Amino acid sequence: MFFPKTAVLGVGLLGASVALALKDRGLTEEVAGYGRNEERLGKAREAGIIDTFSTDASEACSGASLVVLATPPGLFLSLAKPISSVIDRDALVIDVGSVKGKLVGDMQKIIAGFVGCHPIAGGERSGFEAANASLFDSALTIITPTEETDRGALDKAEALWAALGARVQQMDPIRHDKIYAIVSHMPHLAAYAMVSAAYEMDRDSLEFAGRGFRDTTRIAMSSPELWADIFMLNRDNLLESLDSYIENLKRLGSMLLEGDVDALVNKITEGRKLREGIEDR
Amino acid sequence: MFFPKTAVLGVGLLGASVALALKDRGLTEEVAGYGRNEERLGKAREAGIIDTFSTDASEACSGASLVVLATPPGLFLSLAKPISSVIDRDALVIDVGSVKGKLVGDMQKIIAGFVGCHPIAGGERSGFEAANASLFDSALTIITPTEETDRGALDKAEALWAALGARVQQMDPIRHDKIYAIVSHMPHLAAYAMVSAAYEMDRDSLEFAGRGFRDTTRIAMSSPELWADIFMLNRDNLLESLDSYIENLKRLGSMLLEGDVDALVNKITEGRKLREGIEDR
Repeated sequence: MFFPKTAVLGVGLLGASVALALKDRGLTEEVAGYGRNEERLGKAREAGIIDTFSTDASEACSGASLVVLATPPGLFLSLAKPISSVIDRDALVIDVGSVKGKLVGDMQKIIAGFVGCHPIAGGERSGFEAANASLFDSALTIITPTEETDRGALDKAEALWAALGARVQQMDPIRHDKIYAIVSHMPHLAAYAMVSAAYEMDRDSLEFAGRGFRDTTRIAMSSPELWADIFMLNRDNLLESLDSYIENLKRLGSMLLEGDVDALVNKITEGRKLREGIEDR
Repeated sequence: MFFPKTAVLGVGLLGASVALALKDRGLTEEVAGYGRNEERLGKAREAGIIDTFSTDASEACSGASLVVLATPPGLFLSLAKPISSVIDRDALVIDVGSVKGKLVGDMQKIIAGFVGCHPIAGGERSGFEAANASLFDSALTIITPTEETDRGALDKAEALWAALGARVQQMDPIRHDKIYAIVSHMPHLAAYAMVSAAYEMDRDSLEFAGRGFRDTTRIAMSSPELWADIFMLNRDNLLESLDSYIENLKRLGSMLLEGDVDALVNKITEGRKLREGIEDR
């Protein structure tokens, strides 16, 4: 597996880390970067992350054998047409986005070699400055094929992520969006809400926050533009998760109000056991 | 400042860390431990954390010049009487609990040398096995005097925490409980609720959680008995914080439902800025 030319669209933390990881493992010769901000792209080139760059996606993707979509997923469809007309005939096109669902089928209709991918890595950091070649080492990467996914492209995508050190798992794109609304999109929304609520209640309260609060709200440092985009694309699942979360908060509130300590201890003991179950993953 | 005999009531993470820190700095000669579980106390002695132990608080505190209350705060009042009758006449009695409020005045009525203290340290870990002598190094420690607090005891408590490396700050006990409902007690409740909600929505979802979810819910590994106790003692403030949090969640949900992306981006950008403001504290 070797990609003479790779195009990375969106040279942020994930896009840049894929670029570095590919180079590190000798899987590509040249990486072209695409983005809106020429100055940032120039700095990414100086940092050795990309070799060339363009603010025109067609130019960046021209003759590419691998395209990595790493912009906010709301832009994928508008990028698909320009990409599809200039890439190599059997090019592999993957993304690293947090939303799949219907988008996967829509992308596949325009780009035959598209395979939806979601590496569970990166966290709240952003920008190519935080990128590193081992970001995907041992990281779970979800690949979301449909019945229409090109089998050759799927095999290549799996081999690619495995080569970057990832643990690859396939999942239906609709199920993917339900699961990640629960364990990622809703928690992001919740973290933003918690910080705002704390400030609203007492403007000085944040000064007294300890490590627990900082851990709990760390993902509120994530990019608002990226996450608003993800929230909107996965809106229905997210609203459902939000309802269920609020319902659970209210249930604990009722136990508290009624002074039902036994019920409270049982309920939070259940939460602790579940959380301990994923501690060493 | 030297305490010939220190009694630590509740030899968990915080109590044991105070014991180790005192010994490490040569501030005490002998540490007596009190707890319910004789076997655990024996192990804490083997580990060199305490020198003697008893499951009888009066015995552990007999002749003590320093008493550290490190049990769940719901037990403090029932321990106060036995302590007050056996300690040195000018003994200092401090606690390390997360709830202050009315409890401080009640304790001071029974123990003249009581000073309410809350080191912001420890997190979700529990048990003396996780204790260490430098836990309070650079940690904020809130001291909550009232007008009735003995000035000599207050000075000694401040000097003690400073000697353990803590940054000491005084705060009114009523304000303390409002602030820590916001930045600690509500986030703990929220973390338990989030794990339960995730499991309820999809039993397999937790398997797919990344670092963001794990950070967000880390404090759900905290001791349920301790936290149910704290929740109940600070119930009114906690319910108020919970309402405000739910209100903020619903506000974000409405923006999402209405597709008001600008409002959503503004709101979460505000959250990010506030959170970034406490990142390096």
